[in-house]
Parts: sequence; structure tokens; C-alpha cells
Amino acid sequence: MPFLFRCFLTLSLLGGLAFAQKQPIDYVNPFIGTTNYGTTNPGAQMPQGLMNVSPFNVMGSTLNAVDKDARWWSTPYEYNNKYFTGFSHVNLSGVGCPDMGSLLLMATGGALEVDYHKYGSTYSQEAARPGYYTNTLDKYAIKAEASATQRVGISRFTFPKGQHHILLNLGEGLTNETGASVRRVSDTEVEGSKLLGSFCYTNNQAVYPIYFVLRVNKKPTRAGSWKFQRPGAAWENDWNKDAGKYKLFTDYRAELSGDDIGSYFTFDTQAGETVEVQLAVSFVSIENARRNLEAEQPVGGFDAIRKQAEAAWNKDLSKIEVEGGTDDQKTVFYTALYHALIHPNVFQDVNGEYPAMETRETLKSDGNRYTVFSLWDTYRNVQPLMSLLFPERQRDMIRSMIGMYKEHGWMPKWELYSRESYTMDGDPAIPVIVDAYMKGIRDYDINAVYEAFYKSATVTDSSNRIRPDNADYVKYHYVPLRDSFDNSVSHAIEYYVADWNLAQLAKSLGKTADAKLFEERAQGYKKYYSKESGTFRPILPDGSFLTPFDPLMGANFEPNHGFHEGNAWNYSFAVPHDIPGLIKLMGGKKNFVDKLQATFDKGYFDVTNEPDMLYPHIFSEIAGEEWRTQKLVSAILQEHFTNTPAGIPGNDDTGTMSTWASMNMMGIYPLCPGRPDYTVVTPVFDKVTIHLDPAYHQVASQLVIRKEGKGAYIKRIKVDGKVNSGFKIGHQQLVHSKEIVIETK
Amino acid sequence: MPFLFRCFLTLSLLGGLAFAQKQPIDYVNPFIGTTNYGTTNPGAQMPQGLMNVSPFNVMGSTLNAVDKDARWWSTPYEYNNKYFTGFSHVNLSGVGCPDMGSLLLMATGGALEVDYHKYGSTYSQEAARPGYYTNTLDKYAIKAEASATQRVGISRFTFPKGQHHILLNLGEGLTNETGASVRRVSDTEVEGSKLLGSFCYTNNQAVYPIYFVLRVNKKPTRAGSWKFQRPGAAWENDWNKDAGKYKLFTDYRAELSGDDIGSYFTFDTQAGETVEVQLAVSFVSIENARRNLEAEQPVGGFDAIRKQAEAAWNKDLSKIEVEGGTDDQKTVFYTALYHALIHPNVFQDVNGEYPAMETRETLKSDGNRYTVFSLWDTYRNVQPLMSLLFPERQRDMIRSMIGMYKEHGWMPKWELYSRESYTMDGDPAIPVIVDAYMKGIRDYDINAVYEAFYKSATVTDSSNRIRPDNADYVKYHYVPLRDSFDNSVSHAIEYYVADWNLAQLAKSLGKTADAKLFEERAQGYKKYYSKESGTFRPILPDGSFLTPFDPLMGANFEPNHGFHEGNAWNYSFAVPHDIPGLIKLMGGKKNFVDKLQATFDKGYFDVTNEPDMLYPHIFSEIAGEEWRTQKLVSAILQEHFTNTPAGIPGNDDTGTMSTWASMNMMGIYPLCPGRPDYTVVTPVFDKVTIHLDPAYHQVASQLVIRKEGKGAYIKRIKVDGKVNSGFKIGHQQLVHSKEIVIETK
Repeated sequence: MPFLFRCFLTLSLLGGLAFAQKQPIDYVNPFIGTTNYGTTNPGAQMPQGLMNVSPFNVMGSTLNAVDKDARWWSTPYEYNNKYFTGFSHVNLSGVGCPDMGSLLLMATGGALEVDYHKYGSTYSQEAARPGYYTNTLDKYAIKAEASATQRVGISRFTFPKGQHHILLNLGEGLTNETGASVRRVSDTEVEGSKLLGSFCYTNNQAVYPIYFVLRVNKKPTRAGSWKFQRPGAAWENDWNKDAGKYKLFTDYRAELSGDDIGSYFTFDTQAGETVEVQLAVSFVSIENARRNLEAEQPVGGFDAIRKQAEAAWNKDLSKIEVEGGTDDQKTVFYTALYHALIHPNVFQDVNGEYPAMETRETLKSDGNRYTVFSLWDTYRNVQPLMSLLFPERQRDMIRSMIGMYKEHGWMPKWELYSRESYTMDGDPAIPVIVDAYMKGIRDYDINAVYEAFYKSATVTDSSNRIRPDNADYVKYHYVPLRDSFDNSVSHAIEYYVADWNLAQLAKSLGKTADAKLFEERAQGYKKYYSKESGTFRPILPDGSFLTPFDPLMGANFEPNHGFHEGNAWNYSFAVPHDIPGLIKLMGGKKNFVDKLQATFDKGYFDVTNEPDMLYPHIFSEIAGEEWRTQKLVSAILQEHFTNTPAGIPGNDDTGTMSTWASMNMMGIYPLCPGRPDYTVVTPVFDKVTIHLDPAYHQVASQLVIRKEGKGAYIKRIKVDGKVNSGFKIGHQQLVHSKEIVIETK
Repeated sequence: MPFLFRCFLTLSLLGGLAFAQKQPIDYVNPFIGTTNYGTTNPGAQMPQGLMNVSPFNVMGSTLNAVDKDARWWSTPYEYNNKYFTGFSHVNLSGVGCPDMGSLLLMATGGALEVDYHKYGSTYSQEAARPGYYTNTLDKYAIKAEASATQRVGISRFTFPKGQHHILLNLGEGLTNETGASVRRVSDTEVEGSKLLGSFCYTNNQAVYPIYFVLRVNKKPTRAGSWKFQRPGAAWENDWNKDAGKYKLFTDYRAELSGDDIGSYFTFDTQAGETVEVQLAVSFVSIENARRNLEAEQPVGGFDAIRKQAEAAWNKDLSKIEVEGGTDDQKTVFYTALYHALIHPNVFQDVNGEYPAMETRETLKSDGNRYTVFSLWDTYRNVQPLMSLLFPERQRDMIRSMIGMYKEHGWMPKWELYSRESYTMDGDPAIPVIVDAYMKGIRDYDINAVYEAFYKSATVTDSSNRIRPDNADYVKYHYVPLRDSFDNSVSHAIEYYVADWNLAQLAKSLGKTADAKLFEERAQGYKKYYSKESGTFRPILPDGSFLTPFDPLMGANFEPNHGFHEGNAWNYSFAVPHDIPGLIKLMGGKKNFVDKLQATFDKGYFDVTNEPDMLYPHIFSEIAGEEWRTQKLVSAILQEHFTNTPAGIPGNDDTGTMSTWASMNMMGIYPLCPGRPDYTVVTPVFDKVTIHLDPAYHQVASQLVIRKEGKGAYIKRIKVDGKVNSGFKIGHQQLVHSKEIVIETK
């Protein structure tokens, strides 16, 4: 098994720490999710860090199993690929669309070669751990290592004797945009900018620049830049020997701009000589990138920076301690928690500056300004997990969202570096904030929040790009199918969840009439239910159901009528806010349980698609059927979440898939955002200790979830010694308890 | 005749000035030299101005007779072309290699189109005069006008009613480099940089950035940028609707970099509404471009700026007043003088800053720092003309050359915006400065000059890129042919002139031994003379002449052994510093005169090649043969220098060809640089009044050259009433005289 040879570094591999007690960080395997479309990467970064330094192995060679230019591809790293062309700086984790993944830093040897088709290398001795990645480039016998502070990557290359090069390729990357500019500041420093964006191709105007400063810690013997020169007519190429080739600029330091450019540093190295490369970024300016560099890594020092990154991760991961379970289960758990602490990530520079949403005016943030809000995914569990473990971060994320509204006039939907990509469906900012609000995280401007929510919920003209079909929705309380392959049902399904949440907030704020309106709308899902098909079903503009209709259409990303990336079964139970109503709609408890069970038995349940995430937990809403949840969750965890590179079923979706695993492994899962409670499932571990933030949760020290017995099913739950009624537990109850005992049978 | 419809604006066309006395500026026809490879352009600029705003009509359409991409092409404008794609900013005049000619500013109407193949237009009502150019774009009925201050262009577009656009194309230009960056500063302003260089393809490292700020004087209704997007694989293009096309960035203001980008401003105009566009440049920084803009054109105002440019030209051209001669002759004369006042041009920004030679360190200049030194051409007459008419400018040009030496370690050869292109042959900085020194212009550091000259004359290793074959030359006093098609003889021919000049300087500085050495070297030309062929002839490394040998090989830019852009005849008399020696070498006066006359009679004389420029004047070195000079000069002027677009025989070579005409028309021509005298020829005009600079030439007021009689030949010359012995006149004698009377027969 090749995986054995590329392993996450447990402490046994780290000489200095051998035989010490295993820490949470030792159970993180950054390779989990790096194939099977998990789209995580094993890159080095800090918790919630802007900077991620990932191995980039998805271009330039037929040695690779997949190539970013040969098919839709959304991650810098694929576990089964072999051809490494550098470290990409600032990457997305777990997303389904290409973007970022640029500023490619490579080390090579021999004659200078700047064409990535030629300078790449296979690699071996690959290993990774939070905040650290390493491999050895076979072709050059160069050891490559990466670590990072919040906004600055650091790489260390250990060279054999000879002529070697550090290359910064600005022409390539995962992003759909091209175009960069670089300037040599000194022998050891370059600075510049590169265009990123058009994430998912959904909004081709959502582009933005990344600014960088790169510094090497040794004076090179030579340095320069390159640019691919456009080919001219034959006559011209006779004169212009650079036409249609990479031209080296050996004697030019000022701005070099173009589609395909880069910079190089050449060193004559002794055997074992190292060169450290710091790459700082900012989304505001080159000056700020330099400020970030000077504040975070004033003197470089790879080992110290690596230690700092590892310590930060260990601190965050130690929020939860687990006992019992296998090493593999612990690894799956901590890696899942690790994946949940990648996005949203810090955005502002060390001086607090960040580019405002859409306007890109430079503003200053007091606390952390976060970015990369994949809210359609994360409202389901990542943001609720934040509310539980890191309420202060959750608050700052909410403050960031409010900032976006104040800057741009709208709450984020799929925000990426202060541009709105309008990717995916619904109005997911609402369940994110309402859920936190209902859980007692309230230190932000709730009036601004309500104003923003009310706006996107009620504006019906084309300015409302959050709810593009709001005119229909407001009028009918459903969205008719107006184009063959539109996502009308998927949109509406999300509006119902959002509006139910908004109703809860309105109620809480004393806005009774609004609450009534949004409650009513949230019931609109019933209009989609077709007794004939037994599922939700698109409604035509004339009010009739789409006919003919195949509820199974839409598998494997096949385009479908009304449903986004799925079929009718994948959406027909996605009504977390009104399971009782859904049960009634579907013919009562018995029929409902049979139908839901059948989705699993017949394979209609899609573990990779977010709207299905709650399906197993719905059984726990029906007294006596909770065992089905426990059984299904356990089976899904065992089958789909493993300590292997394929150990995440499909896109991790900025930690959403991982968090499904980690929370279920802890024994609590949030079924419905905005409803501040958890479905209790059988924990994987015997004991789970959660260190809560006393600023938000008034526990003396910590909360323990203890499993008693080795049974697969839950017999009884005791909270601080008192038997809990049912298999759910409220958020306030949870965070004010000391011990939850889950007795199994 | 189409020329009639595109005319230079004489005062009769300018309402306000009608019937006033014609001024020198009224005799300038900027279209002379704009076809027949003259490579001048009718663009608007100031005397010695950095900024030139030229119509650009050499790309994008088969309507054009020539296309910059279909053949070697070195000028933004060709008279017989028809398809206008904008104004190019900062252009070269009269050169033979492509460079500059970028920052293309266009006005269009209707739907926004950013592809120059489509947005260009034919034009009519074209007219030009120093500091002003105008045409009307047929396709859009837009009147386009251009003028300039020293570093800032201004264009005015007069629109019909409707939607119109101002486009700044940064993807194209004459330059061999691509790559630019642009940023929207405000609704009415963009700034950025673009790469230029690789002039003549001779030194692919000689590249440099131009920085710009563009401002429109009306707020546009919309504005944005564009970039040509690289095409992806078919699968990607299904998603990326911009792939392989120009993408519009309608909502992005930060840095946009790439190979093919641009910016647009859209206006809804009323009929007759004008928009003024200012485009300021700097070779130091964007900030300096803005400083230039704010210092030179703080409030815009096209008409005032145009008046200022015209006044500056009229002042400079009025240094010489001519009487008699036809209007066409006056036009040829003043246009030639105009062409001599374009390059070298001012380089520093308004704050004195400029990028140092090669290092591009930002330095500050006290006086004017000049650039664009095509010295192989201009040492023959343009720089001597400067010494006569504008000695202060000549001094500043020399100071600029000394600056280059101090910055870079070498005197310039073909310097372009602080990069050395190493184009053409020899060591031409020497005759430029020695000639001025011998004419009494001495207010600069002559010791630094001598140090620089001594260095390039004596260093024999590869660091000496001015004299790349100096090891051979120093050893043999000639350069053997080491590669079939090298330019060995042409190189040596130039070294002889340079070394003779250097000997004169050494003598003048009391360096007797040096003087002797360089005098000796300057005699090396004799080794090239082959009695058999009757010409100079390449010498092989073994010391024998190249055999077989065709002295006529090398016509029409055919590659030749030993001779650069010419044949043996074109170089065999190019020994201005030792005509007596050459006469002796060629068999005495009679044989020599016959041989030289035969070069004309047999068509071996090439009027377009600089080494032949002195051929007609050589006869005046032989008593009794001066009539041949007078006859030949008159015939050449009549045949090759005319008031038509084809009125310059081949490349104007930054004014060198023009200055051959203007000085001969005045009646004085410098045969040999470093020998401070002039050959007197029959003036075209009855009276030529030269206003000399009293700071350098102690004349009371002015010098008059008066022709008496209408004869073609000179009978006698009187200087301030005294008969001159012979047909030459010394520089000091000339500039201290009040009247030179040339009696004709």
C-alpha cells in the first residue's frame, strides 16, 4: 500500500517527542480527503489561517492520474498523482470549484528550466502533519518542507551540492484567471500581484488581486524573471529568438507583467545547504504583504515557525479530548476537527486592513475579519460546531458577515475574499446567524442582521441576487420551474429553512407579524409534495407538476429539472424545521418511516450531498425510531469516514463533511439550525471531554460525554446524573452540564 | 492625388491666422517621410519632447498596405495605410527597428468593442502641423485631435450624439515586448505600466517599463477594463464563457495584468460634445507620471496646450530664417529642421528624476537628461547641427552621455531609454563629443569623457560591448572577417573615425603618446584597400583578402561579408578624417576623382546609407573639383528630398537624413566630425539668417548666409566682406561672422 510510505507524521516519527503522551495533533492525518474528490490538501497552515502552503501536483505530466487542465478540478493536490510542480500558496480546502492555488514555489537543480512541463519532479518520503508538510524531489534530491504563520508561508529546501534554483511561477494555478505582475525589490526579494477569481464560473466579475512579497534568506548568485513570449509570424520569429518561448529576463528588475511570468533565484549550494523562502500575502496591497511578513516572520527560522504552527493546532484540537476508540477512529475524528478549522479563515492584514466586500475599499477591522464563507454547506454543522467550541470565532464570523452587509448591501452567500460568487442555493446566512443567536451568541448588531435578512427575504427585483427568484417565491411560496434545468426546487427548499429561521429571529425580536409571514412561507414546501411520485416535484409556471417526472433523475451530477446536483429523493426530506409537518404530508409516521428507511435501503440516500446530511437523524424525531439513526450513523461512519486518503465521501465542503463525522463521533449532531438542540447518537469514543469557552458557556471547567457499555444503541441518557427525556439535548442544557452519560445497549 | 486631401496645416487653413506673415512653423509638413521607409510620423509633440502622440495605422486590417505583424515594420504610421486603431504614445521617429509605439488610445461608438481588428476605422480630413494632428474617424464620425506637452499627451475627441467609448489598448504596439498592468484609480483615471524594448532584437535584455496615468475630463457613464483570456480545453470552455475571448471587467478596479489588456470609458454624448484625454508618462514611476501630468497640464484645455506646442516649435524653427526658394523648398527645409529636433529627447520627469543607464536606479538630473541616442547616425550631422544652433542642448546631451558612462561604465552607442541596444557599428560617442569640443562647447567634465573614450578604445575583453572585436582591432588595426556575414569592415571603418577623433582630443589634452597611438590606428583603413577590386575588402584571419570577392554584393539589405547594410563601394570612401591619405591610396588625385565620380555614375552611391553621406562633399577636398560637390548635392536634393510623403530617401535615422538636406540647403555641410569646419555648397535659398546663441557664439546678433546670383556653382565666397580662400569655412570663423556671401556662377 503506497499510503504506508506517505504518512502523516505521528510522534513516533518525530525523534524529539518519541514516547511522550500522544497529543491530539498526533492524530491528524492531513492526507484524509486528498483523493475520492474530498479536495482537502495536506498543505501547511495555521488554524483559521489565511496562508496554506500545499503541494501542487495536478499539472504538467501524464504521470498524473488527473490534470487540472484536462477536466474539472478543484484542488491543488491529488493523492494518486505523482508529478510535483511546487507549493501553491493560499488554497481552498474541500471545495468543488477551481480557484486560488497559485503563487507556485518550486526548487530545481541543474540548468535553469522554467517550463513546468519540464521542471516538475516525482517525489517520495512524503509526510504531513498540521502546520507541516515535506517531501523529497526525486529528480533533484531536494528535500522540500513547508510551514506557515497566519498570512505568511515558509518553505525550506535542503539541496545537494551544485547549481539549484528557486522558482516562483505566477502563470499557473487552479484559479480561472490569469495575469500577474512581479518586481525585483532586491537580490533576495520580489513583490507583485496576481489575479484570482471567477470561482465556479458563476460570476465572472468576482475577481480580485492577491498581493505578495517573497524573500529568500540567502543571496543568490543570479536572479531574474521569465515571461512566455507570444509567437509572431514566421518572419518575426526569425529575428525574435524568444517568440513562442519562455524568455529569461536576466537583467531587469522593474515591473514585469503578463499572462505567464515568473521569477527565479539561482544558488550554488553545498551538500546539505538549506534555503528558506518566505512568501507573504495580502489582499490589500504589496505594502501590507510586507507588513505581514515583518510582523509574523521577522527573522524566518523554519523550525521555530513550524513549532509555533503545531502548538497552535494542538491547542485548538485539544478543545476536545477523546478516550477509547481505535487509533484510526481518533485519527478520523481529529482530522475531521482539523478540517473544520480551516475555513472561514482570517482575512485582514496584521494592521487590521482588508478590502471591503465588493467595493474593495480598504477598511480596518477591530477583531478578526473572516472570509471564505461556503454557507450553504457550513450552516448545517461547521458554524454550529464553532458556536459550541469557539463561540468567539463564531461571533467574529458573524461580525464579518454583518460587515459584508454594511459594505455591499447584502449578506454573504458564497463569499470568497470579499467577492460574492453567488454559488449554490438559498439564503444560508440566515440559519448561520439565527442558530448562533438561539445558542446565546449575541454580541453583535442584531438589528443590522435583521435588516439584512429582511431585505434578502423581501426584495423581489433583480437587485436581489441572493434570492434570484424571490418574486415567484414571495408570490407563490414556491419557485416554479421556469427553465428546463433550473434549480427551482433546491432554491425553495433552502428558502424554507432560511425563512423558518428568520421567523424564529423575528419572534425573538418581538416582530410578530414578520414572524407569522416567514413561518407561513416556511410551510411552502408542502406544495412541492407529489403523492404520485412520493417526493418533492418541480411545479410548472401554470401550477401543475412537471410531467413526465423521474424522481431518480439527477444522479452523478447529471443535469436535472429543479434539483441542484441531486435527484428528488435527495431533497424530499430536507425540511429540518418541520419534520412533524413532513410526516403528516407523507401519510403519517408509519408511512414516513418506511419511506425514509427505503431511501437508505434502495440507495436513494446520497452521503455526499448536504441536503441529505440530516436524513439519518430524522428518525430521532420519532419516538421509538431513534435506533435507526444510531444504526445508520454508525454504518455511514464506518463505511465512508476512514483513515485513508479516500476517507471522506466526496467534497469536504470546507469542513462540512468532516464535521458530520466528528460531531456524530462525539455523540451529538445538530439536526436543524436555529433549533438549539442536538440529536444524541452513540458516540464512537468512551469519553469525550469538551473544553468550553467560559466567556460564553458558564461551566466550571469542562463538559464530559461518557459512553457506558459497548452497545451500538442508546439505552438511556443522563445529564449530570438526571435521566434525560428522549434522545435530544438542548444546547443550553449541554453547555451548562458537567457530564452527559450515554448508556448503551 | 490623395496627398492633397491630407495636408499639413499651413496658415491659410487656420482661420484665425489667415493673411498673417507666414512663420517657419507654417512650412512644416509632418507627412514628409511617412512613406518610402522614411519612418517619420505626423504625431504631435514638443521640440525634443518625450511625448509624441502619433496616429497608429499599421495593424488590424487588410485595408492597410503594410501591417506591423506581417513584415518588419518600425513606425506607427504609414501614409498609404487606411485603418486607424488609435493614437500611440511615445514614439520613435525615423528609426529602422520596431519599438515603443504603445499606449494606444482610441475613440469608438456604438456597442463596446475592444478587439482592434473590429474597432478600427478608416479616416479622412487628416491634417498635421508641429504639435498638432487631427483626423475624422469615418466609421464613427468622431473628430480626433492630438497635441502634447513635454511628457504628457492630450487628445480631444468630438463626438456625435450617442454612446461612445474611449479605449486604452495596452496589448499592442510596435515594441517587441508585451505585458502591461492597469489599475482604475477613479472613475476618470487609470494608471499602470507596460513593458517596452528589445529594440532591433539586438539585445533581448534591453527592456524597460513605461509608467502612465490617463485621465478623462468627463465622468463616464461606465468604465472598466478588458483582458484576452487564454483558451482552455474544450471541457473548460463549456464553463468558462470568456475563454479565448476578450473578457470585460466591469466591476474591478485593482491591478489587472496580462499580455493583452486595456481599459475603457463609456460616455453618452450629445452631438458635438468633446472629451479630452490626458496621458502622462514617466520612465521612473506611476507617481512621477502623475507629477508630470499635474505640472504640465494641471487643468487640461486642448486649445491652449496646442498653442503652447506650436509656439515652442515656431520659436525653435525660427533659429533659421530663409528667404528665396520655393514654398516647397522652404517646406522641405523647415520639415528637415523639425525632424532634427525630435531626438534625442528629454527623459527626466518634472522633478528631475530619471532611471540610470542600465541599473535603472532613480537619479536626479540638474539640467535636461536626454535619451534616444542613435549615434552612428547622428554624429555625422544632427549633433553638429545642435552644436551650431542649440549649443546648450548639445552640452546637455553630452552631459547626459557622460551620465550614462558614470552610471553604466560605458558611453552610449544606440541608447534607448537608459538601455543600450548595441545596435549598429563603431564607437560613435567619440566623434559626437570631440566635434562639439573642437567647436568650443566645453562646459562638461572632459576628463570623464576622455576616461570613457580611452576605456572603450583600449579594453579588449568581452566586457567591451561597444567594440566587440577590439582585441583584433587593437592587435591588427583592422578587424578580420571571422564569420561569413559579420560586419568586420564596417566596424573598423567606424573605429578609424572614432580613433582619429580621439587622437585630436588627446592632443588637445596634452596626451601626446595617446594621440600618436590613436592616429596610427586611424590609418588602419589602408589595410583594407584592395588594388584588385579598387575598394575596401574584407581581410581573412590569415591576413589575406577575402576571395572570391564581389564589391557589389550587399545591395538592398542582402547579407554581405564584412559590410553592414551595404556593399564595398558604400564604405570605401568613408574616411572623412584622411581624404589626402585615401587619395594617395587610390592612386592619386586623377584616379581618385574618376573613381569617386564613377560611384555616382554607375549607381554605386547609396543615398540612404549614412557612410555615403559625405561622398558628394569629398570632391570639395580637392581644389578645382568642388563643382562636382555642388552639382551632386543639388541633384540629390532635387531628386530625393521633396515636399511629399515619400520625400525622404529611406529611414530618416532620427533626423540624420533630414539634416543632410537642411544643412546642404543652407549652404554648409560638415564633412568630418572633429574637424571643425564646413564644406560650402550652393545654398538653395537667397538668404539664410541664423540666430546663434550668444552664450556660446560671440556674434552681435545673427549670421547671414547670402547667395548672390542664380548660378548652380559657386564662384567665390566672402566672409564679412573678405574673400574666403577655398570652399570650406571654419566653425569659429562662421559663428563669429555677420555675413557670408556666396557668389554663384
